[in-house]
Amino acid sequence: MSDKTRIRRLPERAVADREVVAAILDEGFVCHAAYITDGRPVVIPTLYVRDGDRVLLHGSNSMGLARAVRAGSPLSVAVTLVDGLVLARSAFNSSANYRSVVIHGEGILIEGEEKAAAFEVIVEKLVPGRLAELRPSTRSEMAQTSVIALSLEEVSGKVRDGGPDDEPEDLPEPVWAGVVPTRLVFGDPVPDIALAADIDVPDYLRPYRR
Amino acid sequence: MSDKTRIRRLPERAVADREVVAAILDEGFVCHAAYITDGRPVVIPTLYVRDGDRVLLHGSNSMGLARAVRAGSPLSVAVTLVDGLVLARSAFNSSANYRSVVIHGEGILIEGEEKAAAFEVIVEKLVPGRLAELRPSTRSEMAQTSVIALSLEEVSGKVRDGGPDDEPEDLPEPVWAGVVPTRLVFGDPVPDIALAADIDVPDYLRPYRR
Repeated sequence: MSDKTRIRRLPERAVADREVVAAILDEGFVCHAAYITDGRPVVIPTLYVRDGDRVLLHGSNSMGLARAVRAGSPLSVAVTLVDGLVLARSAFNSSANYRSVVIHGEGILIEGEEKAAAFEVIVEKLVPGRLAELRPSTRSEMAQTSVIALSLEEVSGKVRDGGPDDEPEDLPEPVWAGVVPTRLVFGDPVPDIALAADIDVPDYLRPYRR
Repeated sequence: MSDKTRIRRLPERAVADREVVAAILDEGFVCHAAYITDGRPVVIPTLYVRDGDRVLLHGSNSMGLARAVRAGSPLSVAVTLVDGLVLARSAFNSSANYRSVVIHGEGILIEGEEKAAAFEVIVEKLVPGRLAELRPSTRSEMAQTSVIALSLEEVSGKVRDGGPDDEPEDLPEPVWAGVVPTRLVFGDPVPDIALAADIDVPDYLRPYRR
């Protein structure tokens, strides 16, 4: 085994560090939430933010997720940031680089005045600076909105990074090996077709980053 | 109501077109698969490809997903491509642009010689051109690998695109509205630290795109 392989770090690992978990949750903004309905699993994408030691999932009150939480279904929520395709010298050791968090627990449908406040947290954490510019939500809008809180009590993180983790006997294989990095890029803001010409792109979008 | 709002297309819609569903599945490569274990939902990210009228999920034979399929759990699998943040003139109408597919059904653990063939389909569809360069997988590697097939029989697609879908009475709000586009970018291939200097980046990675 060469020095290079000996100093290689473990490429895939469970992450116990709460700060790493929080950083993954703060970089993402789309999660996949799974619930049970009629004895079957259902997974859907939805917007979320981390708010301290919980995540807040945004949805419509009529959607299956809100109905399932109301009916007592536990939840499983995953956030995955894809960082690259890992091309090893064997198909078996080829993989992806990613950072992911999975949360399990009982979701809580936030109601009443607390819901409006939680919804504002979602708006502001998705686009910091935005909330102060928007009119308040109406009572009818709040009735159609659902905000589900899920505690980070039962949470696990997983990170795979670095290069391929080849078997030592595969290192002489005459094949390219390495990583094709991937990242989510935020482009320049595109104004709405109906936007008044005198309204500039706000500072909080110059640029938008997470 | 202005002409602009009248010609606005419906921003979020269910997609019945099988070709649109196939195109979404072909662009993605990470799915979120949900299953039930001990009466609770679990969702995990995993690599997948579309193979005709089914998807093939790649995993390890020891992982919970393979165990759950073996135990008879139905599956729900979501693929989500995030295309932008939609900033409407109200918090309520703010949203995300995305293309997503959700598949429900009973997964099948592919076994035996069919598993090796299905695994090769995954390798080749993830990185076309790659398979021919790699040594065959060993019997032990195949024993550790799981390939789960899930039919596209029960599949639904959803697409949200275009600008914000504001209430007509919000259009005069003096706030910027529009879309911050997002896309997943594949960077230049990064060679493994142990790669021999005379092995060039292969043509199929110049550039890698989906």
